[in-house]
Amino acid sequence: MKPKKHVFVCTQGRPPGHPRGCCMQSGGQAVMQAFLNELGSRNAFDRFAVTACGCLGPCDGGPHVLVYPDGVLYQHVQPGDAGEIFDQHLEFDEPLERLRAPAGVWD
Amino acid sequence: MKPKKHVFVCTQGRPPGHPRGCCMQSGGQAVMQAFLNELGSRNAFDRFAVTACGCLGPCDGGPHVLVYPDGVLYQHVQPGDAGEIFDQHLEFDEPLERLRAPAGVWD
Repeated sequence: MKPKKHVFVCTQGRPPGHPRGCCMQSGGQAVMQAFLNELGSRNAFDRFAVTACGCLGPCDGGPHVLVYPDGVLYQHVQPGDAGEIFDQHLEFDEPLERLRAPAGVWD
Repeated sequence: MKPKKHVFVCTQGRPPGHPRGCCMQSGGQAVMQAFLNELGSRNAFDRFAVTACGCLGPCDGGPHVLVYPDGVLYQHVQPGDAGEIFDQHLEFDEPLERLRAPAGVWD
């Protein structure tokens, strides 16, 4: 089914020490798991989707999470933020301003 | 920058012989490369983005390509289709009906 909201979590890796860093190194996999856990515990498979993805571009602000169809990019997302993003953005269409990538990075 | 259109290409793998198959096995990586080639040859980095992603769900119709913010899912995409998707959908907002996942699979 076409999800009402589709969450993409960057889990892209780069070699240790790479100057640009990467979302895998900054904890993207744990963030991915946290979103999957929220999806499962809410039994929200018919409304939302969570998909791992490759590089989204602004690597030094990772872990990054991108929500479509809104096109809202979050940066420095921690596993503990997943619940709030579900509660506020996915359920009520109100993006979390505190985690949004700043103007110039994305919007 | 926030892309006008964001193309996600499933490159998910599963073990050989897995009953559900996977987009990697059906050629997802070549499709991904074809979209990257189109992006580069058109020098369209400021308008469009192409990102590899994990499983999108309806695995037996792969390779799958998902275009946001529209939320249009294409199935059985071949590398030779990338140019047409760019020409028609990305540039002129007209999805390719011949490759769209049928009703019930996505929409």
